[in-house]
Amino acid sequence: METFDLQKSRIFSPDKLRKNNLVETDRLFCDLYCLEPGQEQRPHLHESSDKIYFVLEGRGSFRVGTEEREIGRDQGVLAPAGLDHGVRNGSGERLILLVFMAPKP
Amino acid sequence: METFDLQKSRIFSPDKLRKNNLVETDRLFCDLYCLEPGQEQRPHLHESSDKIYFVLEGRGSFRVGTEEREIGRDQGVLAPAGLDHGVRNGSGERLILLVFMAPKP
Repeated sequence: METFDLQKSRIFSPDKLRKNNLVETDRLFCDLYCLEPGQEQRPHLHESSDKIYFVLEGRGSFRVGTEEREIGRDQGVLAPAGLDHGVRNGSGERLILLVFMAPKP
Repeated sequence: METFDLQKSRIFSPDKLRKNNLVETDRLFCDLYCLEPGQEQRPHLHESSDKIYFVLEGRGSFRVGTEEREIGRDQGVLAPAGLDHGVRNGSGERLILLVFMAPKP
């Protein structure tokens, strides 16, 4: 049985957002994104994959299309295929996100 | 921008496991499963969709294929396409799971 444990995947990088993979199959993947204050994932898009960001810890400013919104713990956002999306940790605390994407691009 | 908030979706049913949908697209869905003590999702399988269970609160006994394992908060498990899978809340506390599935069956 393939299990995962966030305690082993809470790894930050001083240089940039760190993506820690939790699960990957032919159909989907799930990552843990760890962002120190000031770090970001610049807006980008996937033509035919949907992404969900779910905030486990901290607060982040999410952009999807032309909209930007700050959300925090226990909240999430959908970045549908074909729309620019990104996230910035403008807070003074660490930001930890569970990120699902399908299909795998 | 489509966002969601777990505080609005933590809904339990006295009768059986309650699935609260958070996100649904043509490619995937994400639900919040709320299980009172003793409730379960009986083993079943999806021929061509993968599922991820992630424990937000409590502890659950997960079955995938012929294996069974109890995991708790901040842990998750992959139920790959084609394998029987289910979960049972054998604890005395509530169990809350973030469940991601793709592609949508």
